[in-house]
Amino acid sequence: MEQKGILMVLSGFSGAGKGTLVKALLKKYGNYALSISMTTRAPREGEQNGVEYFFTDKKHFEETIKQNGLIEYAPYCGNYYGTPRAYVEEQMAAGKNVILEIELQGALKIKEKFPESLLIFVTPPSAEELRRRLEKRGTESPEVIARRLARAAEESEGVEAYDYIVVNDDLDVCVEEIHRLVEAARRAPVRQREFINEIRKELKSFVKGVE
Amino acid sequence: MEQKGILMVLSGFSGAGKGTLVKALLKKYGNYALSISMTTRAPREGEQNGVEYFFTDKKHFEETIKQNGLIEYAPYCGNYYGTPRAYVEEQMAAGKNVILEIELQGALKIKEKFPESLLIFVTPPSAEELRRRLEKRGTESPEVIARRLARAAEESEGVEAYDYIVVNDDLDVCVEEIHRLVEAARRAPVRQREFINEIRKELKSFVKGVE
Repeated sequence: MEQKGILMVLSGFSGAGKGTLVKALLKKYGNYALSISMTTRAPREGEQNGVEYFFTDKKHFEETIKQNGLIEYAPYCGNYYGTPRAYVEEQMAAGKNVILEIELQGALKIKEKFPESLLIFVTPPSAEELRRRLEKRGTESPEVIARRLARAAEESEGVEAYDYIVVNDDLDVCVEEIHRLVEAARRAPVRQREFINEIRKELKSFVKGVE
Repeated sequence: MEQKGILMVLSGFSGAGKGTLVKALLKKYGNYALSISMTTRAPREGEQNGVEYFFTDKKHFEETIKQNGLIEYAPYCGNYYGTPRAYVEEQMAAGKNVILEIELQGALKIKEKFPESLLIFVTPPSAEELRRRLEKRGTESPEVIARRLARAAEESEGVEAYDYIVVNDDLDVCVEEIHRLVEAARRAPVRQREFINEIRKELKSFVKGVE
């Protein structure tokens, strides 16, 4: 069966622990790669080019769009954000599952363009636990927490678009589960096109052979 | 998350080893149950009522249909075949994954009626291997083998309707893979409706709470 990597989207509520999950996934298994988005927004303090984002200007971003160099992009708050194509394609060809950490709108675009992509949504075990985690950080005002919860309520309306919903209760368990889901996803027909075509062709040749 | 059993359909080419797989799955894991079909055809030599099929007459079968006692049924070669509802529902409520060993047409009916059902298609590693297995049995004439291969060629056109395609190369590996696919399938949104509704309700109550 095919061993090309899977293009996977990881979304989830703010506070679900996506960032930590991605790091743990990259550390534990050798066959994952994290896609880094390109943006025209200015780097914040401490952000490094090529780590959090590839920072660039509007002119270069629009040239990249024209050259079909992004697999998806969207404007957001006056800036562009997009996923560079070359890295994704190279890594997938090398058998790596490429993780895009993007939100619902981007996820839907990816699924439309790449039906064989895999969309995973990460959630805490309950809304109550989500609130607890946001409060525990201690860095955010009640207003910010309220806004994040309101945002989560909105986001929860889109979860049916995802292939899988994963509960992040215990980090290690969750990392292993995501890995198993990615392996399972390889067995979906949409990711076995070559194998299916091969077996069909061969079966047809047998039938012709006896006619 | 929900622990109700999953309604699963196991289909596959004749010669793919479905029967052996089902037996091994039932033996290895405690949370599977095999649904036994009801039929109006006469038992063949060696077949026992309640083992291969529940054998009954046309009158009783049609009464069962009227009483909504079958989750799917179809006439085939002048006889009825159907899946009794009571056993399936009892076993699923008890947390067992219920296996229906039926073909594409039945599988499609099941998926339509039960979107949360899981369709798995079993195939040998190649068409060549399928032919080898059919020939190796030594019990069938070249004509019968040719007919089965022609049938497999037809069946191969329907595999996109399945959730997963599983290669049965090594029995133990395949049994474990099917089990993992069933576990993975629990994480699909269609099988997490209660959890999703619960988290949505809770998130909305938080948002209302701060308005």
